[in-house]
Amino acid sequence: MQILKLGGSVITQKDRPQTADLEAIRRLAKMLGGLWKSGVRDIVLVHGAGSFGHALVIQHRLDNGVKTEAQKLACAQTRAACAKLSAIVAQALLDEGVPAMVLPTGLLAVSTNKRISKFDEKKVLSCLAAGYLPILRGDMVPDASLGFSVCSGDQLVARLGKKAERIVLGSDVDGVLADGKVIPLITSQNFAKYESHLRPSDSPDVTGGMAGKVKELLSVKVSAYVANALQPERLEALLQGKKTICTQIEW
Amino acid sequence: MQILKLGGSVITQKDRPQTADLEAIRRLAKMLGGLWKSGVRDIVLVHGAGSFGHALVIQHRLDNGVKTEAQKLACAQTRAACAKLSAIVAQALLDEGVPAMVLPTGLLAVSTNKRISKFDEKKVLSCLAAGYLPILRGDMVPDASLGFSVCSGDQLVARLGKKAERIVLGSDVDGVLADGKVIPLITSQNFAKYESHLRPSDSPDVTGGMAGKVKELLSVKVSAYVANALQPERLEALLQGKKTICTQIEW
Repeated sequence: MQILKLGGSVITQKDRPQTADLEAIRRLAKMLGGLWKSGVRDIVLVHGAGSFGHALVIQHRLDNGVKTEAQKLACAQTRAACAKLSAIVAQALLDEGVPAMVLPTGLLAVSTNKRISKFDEKKVLSCLAAGYLPILRGDMVPDASLGFSVCSGDQLVARLGKKAERIVLGSDVDGVLADGKVIPLITSQNFAKYESHLRPSDSPDVTGGMAGKVKELLSVKVSAYVANALQPERLEALLQGKKTICTQIEW
Repeated sequence: MQILKLGGSVITQKDRPQTADLEAIRRLAKMLGGLWKSGVRDIVLVHGAGSFGHALVIQHRLDNGVKTEAQKLACAQTRAACAKLSAIVAQALLDEGVPAMVLPTGLLAVSTNKRISKFDEKKVLSCLAAGYLPILRGDMVPDASLGFSVCSGDQLVARLGKKAERIVLGSDVDGVLADGKVIPLITSQNFAKYESHLRPSDSPDVTGGMAGKVKELLSVKVSAYVANALQPERLEALLQGKKTICTQIEW
Protein backbone atom coordinates (compact mmCIF):
# COMPACT_ATOMS: atom_id res chain seq x y z
CA MET A 1 0.00 0.00 0.00
CA GLN A 2 1.12 3.51 -0.82
CA ILE A 3 -0.55 6.57 0.63
CA LEU A 4 -0.93 9.73 -1.41
CA LYS A 5 -1.97 12.72 0.64
CA LEU A 6 -3.22 15.76 -1.24
CA GLY A 7 -3.20 18.88 0.89
CA GLY A 8 -6.29 21.06 1.05
CA SER A 9 -4.15 23.87 -0.33
CA VAL A 10 -3.60 21.83 -3.49
CA ILE A 11 -7.17 20.83 -4.33
CA THR A 12 -9.10 23.85 -3.01
CA GLN A 13 -8.83 27.58 -3.39
CA LYS A 14 -7.93 28.36 0.19
CA ASP A 15 -9.03 31.99 0.01
CA ARG A 16 -12.50 31.19 -1.37
CA PRO A 17 -14.88 29.27 0.88
CA GLN A 18 -15.89 25.83 -0.42
CA THR A 19 -14.29 26.27 -3.80
CA ALA A 20 -12.44 23.35 -5.35
CA ASP A 21 -9.46 23.85 -7.63
CA LEU A 22 -11.03 21.82 -10.41
CA GLU A 23 -8.12 22.24 -12.78
CA ALA A 24 -5.60 20.94 -10.22
CA ILE A 25 -7.91 18.03 -9.35
CA ARG A 26 -8.38 17.17 -13.01
CA ARG A 27 -4.63 17.10 -13.64
CA LEU A 28 -3.99 14.94 -10.58
CA ALA A 29 -6.81 12.58 -11.55
CA LYS A 30 -5.32 12.26 -15.03
CA MET A 31 -1.96 11.36 -13.52
CA LEU A 32 -3.59 8.79 -11.19
CA GLY A 33 -5.61 7.40 -14.11
CA GLY A 34 -2.37 6.84 -16.00
CA LEU A 35 -0.80 5.07 -13.01
CA TRP A 36 -3.93 2.94 -12.59
CA LYS A 37 -3.83 1.85 -16.24
CA SER A 38 -0.12 1.07 -15.93
CA GLY A 39 -0.89 -1.30 -13.05
CA VAL A 40 -0.09 0.86 -10.02
CA ARG A 41 -3.19 -0.05 -8.01
CA ASP A 42 -1.98 0.07 -4.43
CA ILE A 43 -2.73 3.72 -3.73
CA VAL A 44 -4.92 5.05 -0.91
CA LEU A 45 -5.75 8.71 -1.44
CA VAL A 46 -6.15 10.96 1.59
CA HIS A 47 -7.11 14.57 1.05
CA GLY A 48 -7.28 17.61 3.28
CA ALA A 49 -10.40 19.72 3.65
CA GLY A 50 -8.91 23.08 2.70
CA SER A 51 -11.49 25.79 2.18
CA PHE A 52 -14.31 23.23 2.54
CA GLY A 53 -13.56 22.69 6.20
CA HIS A 54 -11.33 25.22 7.89
CA ALA A 55 -13.54 28.32 7.70
CA LEU A 56 -16.54 26.65 9.37
CA VAL A 57 -14.31 25.03 11.99
CA ILE A 58 -12.72 28.35 12.90
CA GLN A 59 -15.95 30.34 12.77
CA HIS A 60 -17.75 27.99 15.16
CA ARG A 61 -14.68 27.04 17.20
CA LEU A 62 -15.17 23.36 16.49
CA ASP A 63 -11.47 22.66 17.08
CA ASN A 64 -12.10 22.38 20.81
CA GLY A 65 -15.19 20.23 20.65
CA VAL A 66 -18.83 20.35 19.67
CA LYS A 67 -21.32 21.07 22.42
CA THR A 68 -23.97 23.69 21.57
CA GLU A 69 -26.81 23.29 19.10
CA ALA A 70 -25.15 25.85 16.83
CA GLN A 71 -21.90 23.91 16.94
CA LYS A 72 -23.72 20.68 16.11
CA LEU A 73 -25.27 22.28 13.07
CA ALA A 74 -21.86 23.66 12.04
CA CYS A 75 -20.30 20.23 12.61
CA ALA A 76 -22.90 18.63 10.34
CA GLN A 77 -22.33 21.40 7.78
CA THR A 78 -18.59 20.75 7.90
CA ARG A 79 -19.13 17.03 7.37
CA ALA A 80 -21.37 17.80 4.38
CA ALA A 81 -18.82 20.24 2.94
CA CYS A 82 -15.94 17.77 3.30
CA ALA A 83 -18.11 15.11 1.66
CA LYS A 84 -18.69 17.45 -1.29
CA LEU A 85 -14.96 17.85 -1.77
CA SER A 86 -14.45 14.08 -1.65
CA ALA A 87 -17.25 13.69 -4.20
CA ILE A 88 -15.52 16.11 -6.57
CA VAL A 89 -12.21 14.26 -6.23
CA ALA A 90 -13.95 10.88 -6.70
CA GLN A 91 -15.80 12.08 -9.79
CA ALA A 92 -12.57 13.30 -11.38
CA LEU A 93 -11.02 9.87 -10.81
CA LEU A 94 -14.10 8.02 -12.08
CA ASP A 95 -13.95 10.18 -15.20
CA GLU A 96 -10.41 8.86 -15.75
CA GLY A 97 -11.58 5.26 -15.39
CA VAL A 98 -10.36 4.76 -11.83
CA PRO A 99 -12.88 2.93 -9.59
CA ALA A 100 -12.49 5.36 -6.69
CA MET A 101 -14.56 4.86 -3.56
CA VAL A 102 -15.02 7.43 -0.81
CA LEU A 103 -14.67 6.04 2.72
CA PRO A 104 -15.74 8.90 5.00
CA THR A 105 -13.37 9.28 7.92
CA GLY A 106 -16.22 9.91 10.35
CA LEU A 107 -17.29 6.29 9.83
CA LEU A 108 -13.80 4.83 10.16
CA ALA A 109 -12.26 6.75 13.04
CA VAL A 110 -13.17 7.60 16.61
CA SER A 111 -11.00 10.09 18.48
CA THR A 112 -10.39 10.76 22.12
CA ASN A 113 -9.41 14.36 22.85
CA LYS A 114 -8.52 15.05 19.20
CA ARG A 115 -6.36 11.97 18.64
CA ILE A 116 -7.60 8.89 16.80
CA SER A 117 -8.23 6.19 19.39
CA LYS A 118 -9.96 3.66 17.13
CA PHE A 119 -9.52 3.25 13.42
CA ASP A 120 -11.20 0.64 11.24
CA GLU A 121 -8.31 0.12 8.83
CA LYS A 122 -9.77 -3.22 7.68
CA LYS A 123 -12.39 -1.33 5.67
CA VAL A 124 -9.65 0.58 3.86
CA LEU A 125 -7.51 -2.48 3.22
CA SER A 126 -10.42 -4.60 1.98
CA CYS A 127 -11.59 -1.82 -0.34
CA LEU A 128 -8.06 -1.68 -1.77
CA ALA A 129 -7.80 -5.47 -2.00
CA ALA A 130 -11.14 -5.61 -3.84
CA GLY A 131 -9.66 -3.48 -6.62
CA TYR A 132 -10.81 0.03 -5.77
CA LEU A 133 -8.95 3.23 -4.98
CA PRO A 134 -10.08 4.30 -1.49
CA ILE A 135 -10.47 8.03 -0.81
CA LEU A 136 -10.22 9.25 2.78
CA ARG A 137 -10.26 12.80 4.04
CA GLY A 138 -9.65 15.13 6.92
CA ASP A 139 -13.04 15.55 8.60
CA MET A 140 -15.02 15.95 11.81
CA VAL A 141 -15.03 12.59 13.60
CA PRO A 142 -16.83 11.36 16.72
CA ASP A 143 -14.73 12.14 19.78
CA ALA A 144 -15.25 10.31 23.08
CA SER A 145 -14.22 13.42 25.05
CA LEU A 146 -15.42 16.28 22.85
CA GLY A 147 -18.50 15.06 20.99
CA PHE A 148 -16.83 15.58 17.66
CA SER A 149 -13.37 16.85 16.80
CA VAL A 150 -11.22 17.65 13.81
CA CYS A 151 -9.25 14.72 12.44
CA SER A 152 -6.71 16.09 9.99
CA GLY A 153 -5.73 14.26 6.86
CA ASP A 154 -2.20 14.23 8.25
CA GLN A 155 -3.28 12.43 11.39
CA LEU A 156 -5.08 9.89 9.21
CA VAL A 157 -1.92 9.42 7.15
CA ALA A 158 0.10 8.88 10.32
CA ARG A 159 -2.36 6.27 11.55
CA LEU A 160 -2.86 4.37 8.30
CA GLY A 161 0.71 4.95 7.15
CA LYS A 162 2.23 2.52 9.63
CA LYS A 163 1.22 -0.25 7.21
CA ALA A 164 2.30 1.60 4.08
CA GLU A 165 5.32 0.99 1.92
CA ARG A 166 5.58 4.68 1.11
CA ILE A 167 3.84 7.96 1.91
CA VAL A 168 3.74 10.76 -0.66
CA LEU A 169 2.51 14.11 0.52
CA GLY A 170 1.42 16.48 -2.23
CA SER A 171 1.93 20.08 -1.18
CA ASP A 172 1.58 23.44 -2.95
CA VAL A 173 5.34 23.97 -2.75
CA ASP A 174 8.35 21.94 -3.87
CA GLY A 175 8.87 20.18 -0.55
CA VAL A 176 9.55 21.21 3.03
CA LEU A 177 11.13 24.63 2.73
CA ALA A 178 13.58 26.33 5.05
CA ASP A 179 14.15 29.96 4.07
CA GLY A 180 12.69 29.25 0.64
CA LYS A 181 14.85 26.25 -0.19
CA VAL A 182 13.82 22.60 -0.37
CA ILE A 183 15.29 20.54 2.46
CA PRO A 184 16.37 17.31 0.72
CA LEU A 185 16.24 15.05 3.78
CA ILE A 186 14.65 15.43 7.19
CA THR A 187 15.29 12.93 9.96
CA SER A 188 14.39 12.85 13.64
CA GLN A 189 17.99 13.95 14.23
CA ASN A 190 18.03 17.08 12.08
CA PHE A 191 14.38 18.10 12.47
CA ALA A 192 14.99 20.34 15.51
CA LYS A 193 17.47 22.37 13.45
CA TYR A 194 14.87 23.04 10.72
CA GLU A 195 11.72 23.35 12.80
CA SER A 196 11.96 27.08 13.52
CA HIS A 197 12.61 27.79 9.83
CA LEU A 198 9.45 26.09 8.56
CA ARG A 199 7.18 28.81 7.27
CA PRO A 200 3.71 28.91 8.70
CA SER A 201 0.86 28.17 6.31
CA ASP A 202 -0.38 31.25 4.45
CA SER A 203 -4.01 30.42 5.16
CA PRO A 204 -6.04 29.56 8.20
CA ASP A 205 -5.15 25.99 9.04
CA VAL A 206 -6.51 24.19 12.06
CA THR A 207 -4.35 21.15 11.60
CA GLY A 208 -0.81 22.25 12.41
CA GLY A 209 0.85 23.55 9.25
CA MET A 210 4.04 22.13 7.79
CA ALA A 211 5.86 21.56 11.08
CA GLY A 212 2.87 19.53 12.28
CA LYS A 213 2.84 17.51 9.06
CA VAL A 214 6.53 16.67 9.34
CA LYS A 215 6.14 15.66 12.99
CA GLU A 216 3.27 13.33 12.05
CA LEU A 217 5.32 11.82 9.24
CA LEU A 218 8.41 11.31 11.42
CA SER A 219 6.25 9.43 13.91
CA VAL A 220 5.17 6.88 11.28
CA LYS A 221 8.59 5.32 10.65
CA VAL A 222 7.90 4.79 6.94
CA SER A 223 9.67 6.43 3.99
CA ALA A 224 7.80 9.63 3.27
CA TYR A 225 8.16 12.31 0.62
CA VAL A 226 6.82 15.86 0.40
CA ALA A 227 6.57 17.08 -3.19
CA ASN A 228 4.82 19.69 -5.29
CA ALA A 229 1.39 18.42 -6.34
CA LEU A 230 1.06 21.27 -8.83
CA GLN A 231 3.65 19.23 -10.76
CA PRO A 232 1.74 15.91 -10.86
CA GLU A 233 4.63 14.20 -12.67
CA ARG A 234 6.68 14.53 -9.47
CA LEU A 235 4.04 12.67 -7.46
CA GLU A 236 3.83 10.15 -10.28
CA ALA A 237 7.59 9.55 -10.12
CA LEU A 238 7.53 9.02 -6.37
CA LEU A 239 4.55 6.65 -6.61
CA GLN A 240 6.59 4.64 -9.13
CA GLY A 241 9.54 4.50 -6.75
CA LYS A 242 11.58 6.99 -8.82
CA LYS A 243 13.52 10.05 -7.69
CA THR A 244 12.36 13.65 -8.18
CA ILE A 245 12.48 17.09 -6.57
CA CYS A 246 11.10 16.61 -3.06
CA THR A 247 11.87 16.40 0.62
CA GLN A 248 12.48 12.90 1.85
CA ILE A 249 11.55 12.18 5.45
CA GLU A 250 13.21 9.24 7.14
CA TRP A 251 12.70 8.55 10.85
CA MET B 1 -36.21 5.87 17.30
CA GLN B 2 -38.48 6.36 14.31
CA ILE B 3 -37.45 5.51 10.79
CA LEU B 4 -38.58 7.59 7.87
CA LYS B 5 -37.95 5.97 4.52
CA LEU B 6 -38.22 8.17 1.46
CA GLY B 7 -38.53 6.18 -1.74
CA GLY B 8 -36.31 6.93 -4.69
CA SER B 9 -39.47 7.65 -6.66
CA VAL B 10 -40.25 10.50 -4.26
CA ILE B 11 -36.93 12.34 -4.22
CA THR B 12 -35.68 11.68 -7.75
CA GLN B 13 -37.13 11.99 -11.21
CA LYS B 14 -37.18 8.31 -12.04
CA ASP B 15 -37.29 8.83 -15.81
CA ARG B 16 -34.27 11.17 -15.85
CA PRO B 17 -30.91 9.71 -14.89
CA GLN B 18 -29.32 11.21 -11.79
CA THR B 19 -31.87 13.98 -11.43
CA ALA B 20 -33.13 14.88 -7.98
CA ASP B 21 -36.63 16.20 -7.42
CA LEU B 22 -35.37 19.30 -5.63
CA GLU B 23 -38.82 20.71 -5.00
CA ALA B 24 -40.03 17.51 -3.30
CA ILE B 25 -36.83 17.32 -1.26
CA ARG B 26 -37.16 20.96 -0.21
CA ARG B 27 -40.75 20.45 0.97
CA LEU B 28 -39.86 17.31 2.90
CA ALA B 29 -36.86 19.05 4.47
CA LYS B 30 -39.08 21.94 5.53
CA MET B 31 -41.47 19.48 7.20
CA LEU B 32 -38.60 17.72 8.96
CA GLY B 33 -37.15 21.09 10.01
CA GLY B 34 -40.49 21.92 11.63
CA LEU B 35 -40.56 18.59 13.46
CA TRP B 36 -36.96 19.08 14.59
CA LYS B 37 -37.74 22.54 16.01
CA SER B 38 -40.83 21.13 17.77
CA GLY B 39 -38.63 18.60 19.55
CA VAL B 40 -39.16 15.48 17.39
CA ARG B 41 -35.49 14.46 17.23
CA ASP B 42 -35.64 10.69 17.10
CA ILE B 43 -35.82 10.28 13.31
CA VAL B 44 -33.43 8.25 11.19
CA LEU B 45 -33.89 9.03 7.51
CA VAL B 46 -33.35 6.27 4.95
CA HIS B 47 -33.65 7.12 1.28
CA GLY B 48 -33.77 5.08 -1.88
CA ALA B 49 -31.44 5.65 -4.79
CA GLY B 50 -34.05 6.15 -7.51
CA SER B 51 -32.62 7.42 -10.77
CA PHE B 52 -29.19 7.89 -9.12
CA GLY B 53 -28.73 4.16 -8.74
CA HIS B 54 -31.04 1.91 -10.71
CA ALA B 55 -29.97 2.79 -14.26
CA LEU B 56 -26.27 2.05 -13.64
CA VAL B 57 -27.10 -1.12 -11.73
CA ILE B 58 -29.29 -2.42 -14.55
CA GLN B 59 -26.95 -1.33 -17.34
CA HIS B 60 -23.96 -3.10 -15.82
CA ARG B 61 -25.91 -6.00 -14.23
CA LEU B 62 -24.57 -5.19 -10.79
CA ASP B 63 -27.60 -6.86 -9.17
CA ASN B 64 -25.90 -10.23 -9.42
CA GLY B 65 -22.49 -9.21 -8.22
CA VAL B 66 -19.47 -7.19 -9.25
CA LYS B 67 -16.64 -9.07 -10.89
CA THR B 68 -15.22 -7.48 -14.04
CA GLU B 69 -13.18 -4.29 -14.22
CA ALA B 70 -16.08 -2.55 -15.99
CA GLN B 71 -18.46 -3.63 -13.23
CA LYS B 72 -16.07 -2.36 -10.57
CA LEU B 73 -15.97 1.03 -12.24
CA ALA B 74 -19.78 1.02 -12.51
CA CYS B 75 -20.04 -0.01 -8.86
CA ALA B 76 -17.83 2.91 -7.84
CA GLN B 77 -19.87 5.22 -10.08
CA THR B 78 -23.07 3.99 -8.44
CA ARG B 79 -21.62 4.63 -4.99
CA ALA B 80 -20.64 8.14 -6.06
CA ALA B 81 -24.07 8.79 -7.55
CA CYS B 82 -25.89 7.58 -4.43
CA ALA B 83 -23.58 9.76 -2.33
CA LYS B 84 -24.56 12.77 -4.43
CA LEU B 85 -28.23 12.15 -3.75
CA SER B 86 -27.55 11.85 -0.01
CA ALA B 87 -25.59 15.09 -0.18
CA ILE B 88 -28.54 16.87 -1.79
CA VAL B 89 -30.92 15.56 0.89
CA ALA B 90 -28.49 16.48 3.66
CA GLN B 91 -27.98 19.99 2.30
CA ALA B 92 -31.75 20.59 2.19
CA LEU B 93 -32.00 19.54 5.84
CA LEU B 94 -28.99 21.64 6.87
CA ASP B 95 -30.62 24.61 5.15
CA GLU B 96 -33.63 24.06 7.45
CA GLY B 97 -31.41 24.04 10.52
CA VAL B 98 -31.39 20.27 11.00
CA PRO B 99 -27.93 18.84 11.83
CA ALA B 100 -28.20 16.00 9.35
CA MET B 101 -25.28 13.62 8.95
CA VAL B 102 -24.85 11.14 6.10
CA LEU B 103 -23.79 7.65 7.19
CA PRO B 104 -23.01 5.80 3.94
CA THR B 105 -24.48 2.32 3.97
CA GLY B 106 -21.39 0.84 2.34
CA LEU B 107 -19.49 1.63 5.55
CA LEU B 108 -22.18 0.26 7.89
CA ALA B 109 -23.34 -2.91 6.22
CA VAL B 110 -21.76 -6.06 4.81
CA SER B 111 -23.97 -8.45 2.87
CA THR B 112 -23.70 -12.11 2.03
CA ASN B 113 -25.45 -13.05 -1.21
CA LYS B 114 -27.47 -9.81 -1.28
CA ARG B 115 -28.70 -9.93 2.32
CA ILE B 116 -27.19 -7.85 5.11
CA SER B 117 -25.11 -10.19 7.26
CA LYS B 118 -23.40 -7.54 9.42
CA PHE B 119 -24.73 -4.12 10.29
CA ASP B 120 -23.03 -1.58 12.52
CA GLU B 121 -26.18 -0.13 14.04
CA LYS B 122 -24.21 1.37 16.93
CA LYS B 123 -22.91 4.09 14.59
CA VAL B 124 -26.47 5.03 13.70
CA LEU B 125 -27.71 4.99 17.28
CA SER B 126 -24.78 6.99 18.62
CA CYS B 127 -25.17 9.58 15.85
CA LEU B 128 -28.83 9.93 16.83
CA ALA B 129 -28.01 10.03 20.55
CA ALA B 130 -25.43 12.77 19.94
CA GLY B 131 -28.18 15.01 18.58
CA TYR B 132 -27.92 14.57 14.83
CA LEU B 133 -30.34 13.29 12.21
CA PRO B 134 -28.66 10.30 10.53
CA ILE B 135 -29.20 9.82 6.79
CA LEU B 136 -28.78 6.32 5.36
CA ARG B 137 -29.43 5.16 1.82
CA GLY B 138 -29.87 2.26 -0.51
CA ASP B 139 -26.43 1.65 -2.00
CA MET B 140 -23.84 -0.84 -3.23
CA VAL B 141 -22.35 -2.58 -0.20
CA PRO B 142 -19.47 -5.05 0.18
CA ASP B 143 -20.79 -8.59 -0.26
CA ALA B 144 -18.86 -11.61 1.03
CA SER B 145 -20.18 -13.76 -1.86
CA LEU B 146 -20.52 -11.28 -4.71
CA GLY B 147 -17.86 -8.60 -4.22
CA PHE B 148 -20.45 -5.88 -3.92
CA SER B 149 -24.23 -6.09 -4.11
CA VAL B 150 -27.26 -3.85 -4.00
CA CYS B 151 -28.59 -3.13 -0.52
CA SER B 152 -32.00 -1.54 -0.90
CA GLY B 153 -33.23 1.16 1.42
CA ASP B 154 -36.06 -1.22 2.29
CA GLN B 155 -33.68 -3.93 3.41
CA LEU B 156 -31.89 -1.33 5.56
CA VAL B 157 -35.21 -0.29 7.07
CA ALA B 158 -36.03 -3.92 7.84
CA ARG B 159 -32.68 -4.39 9.55
CA LEU B 160 -32.56 -1.17 11.53
CA GLY B 161 -36.33 -1.12 12.07
CA LYS B 162 -36.31 -3.94 14.59
CA LYS B 163 -35.24 -1.38 17.17
CA ALA B 164 -37.65 1.32 16.00
CA GLU B 165 -40.84 2.48 17.61
CA ARG B 166 -42.36 3.23 14.23
CA ILE B 167 -41.51 3.01 10.54
CA VAL B 168 -42.94 5.52 8.09
CA LEU B 169 -42.48 4.78 4.42
CA GLY B 170 -42.96 7.77 2.13
CA SER B 171 -44.17 6.66 -1.29
CA ASP B 172 -45.32 8.48 -4.42
CA VAL B 173 -48.87 7.20 -3.92
CA ASP B 174 -51.34 7.36 -1.03
CA GLY B 175 -50.38 4.01 0.48
CA VAL B 176 -50.31 0.41 -0.67
CA LEU B 177 -52.85 0.28 -3.48
CA ALA B 178 -54.94 -2.65 -4.65
CA ASP B 179 -56.78 -1.84 -7.86
CA GLY B 180 -56.19 1.87 -7.26
CA LYS B 181 -57.55 1.99 -3.71
CA VAL B 182 -55.58 2.41 -0.49
CA ILE B 183 -55.54 -0.75 1.61
CA PRO B 184 -56.05 0.56 5.15
CA LEU B 185 -54.41 -2.34 7.00
CA ILE B 186 -52.11 -5.12 5.87
CA THR B 187 -51.21 -7.98 8.17
CA SER B 188 -49.36 -11.26 7.65
CA GLN B 189 -52.80 -12.87 7.57
CA ASN B 190 -54.34 -10.78 4.77
CA PHE B 191 -51.17 -10.07 2.74
CA ALA B 192 -51.53 -13.11 0.48
CA LYS B 193 -54.98 -11.87 -0.57
CA TYR B 194 -53.57 -8.51 -1.66
CA GLU B 195 -50.17 -9.54 -3.03
CA SER B 196 -51.27 -10.27 -6.60
CA HIS B 197 -53.10 -6.93 -6.77
CA LEU B 198 -50.07 -4.81 -5.87
CA ARG B 199 -49.17 -2.89 -8.97
CA PRO B 200 -45.60 -3.22 -10.17
CA SER B 201 -43.48 -0.12 -9.99
CA ASP B 202 -43.76 2.08 -13.10
CA SER B 203 -40.00 2.46 -13.37
CA PRO B 204 -37.05 0.12 -13.38
CA ASP B 205 -36.61 -1.00 -9.80
CA VAL B 206 -33.95 -3.48 -8.78
CA THR B 207 -35.20 -3.73 -5.24
CA GLY B 208 -38.51 -5.54 -5.42
CA GLY B 209 -41.27 -2.98 -5.90
CA MET B 210 -44.20 -2.52 -3.50
CA ALA B 211 -44.78 -6.22 -2.76
CA GLY B 212 -41.13 -6.51 -1.76
CA LYS B 213 -41.41 -3.43 0.45
CA VAL B 214 -44.46 -4.79 2.26
CA LYS B 215 -42.78 -8.18 2.77
CA GLU B 216 -39.74 -6.46 4.29
CA LEU B 217 -41.98 -4.38 6.56
CA LEU B 218 -44.03 -7.38 7.71
CA SER B 219 -40.81 -9.14 8.67
CA VAL B 220 -39.81 -6.34 11.05
CA LYS B 221 -42.65 -6.76 13.55
CA VAL B 222 -42.90 -3.01 14.22
CA SER B 223 -45.82 -0.71 13.41
CA ALA B 224 -45.25 0.57 9.91
CA TYR B 225 -47.09 3.01 7.69
CA VAL B 226 -46.97 3.66 3.96
CA ALA B 227 -48.10 7.17 3.07
CA ASN B 228 -47.84 9.73 0.29
CA ALA B 229 -44.62 11.71 0.64
CA LEU B 230 -45.83 14.23 -1.92
CA GLN B 231 -48.15 15.29 0.93
CA PRO B 232 -45.46 15.90 3.57
CA GLU B 233 -48.12 16.75 6.19
CA ARG B 234 -49.19 13.10 6.14
CA LEU B 235 -45.68 11.93 7.00
CA GLU B 236 -45.54 14.68 9.61
CA ALA B 237 -48.77 13.41 11.22
CA LEU B 238 -47.49 9.83 11.34
CA LEU B 239 -44.14 10.91 12.82
CA GLN B 240 -46.12 12.70 15.54
CA GLY B 241 -48.15 9.56 16.24
CA LYS B 242 -51.30 10.97 14.63
CA LYS B 243 -53.66 9.35 12.12
CA THR B 244 -53.78 10.21 8.42
CA ILE B 245 -54.45 8.66 5.00
CA CYS B 246 -52.08 5.71 4.74
CA THR B 247 -51.71 1.95 4.80
CA GLN B 248 -50.88 0.58 8.21
CA ILE B 249 -48.81 -2.59 8.29
CA GLU B 250 -48.98 -4.73 11.41
CA TRP B 251 -47.29 -8.09 11.56
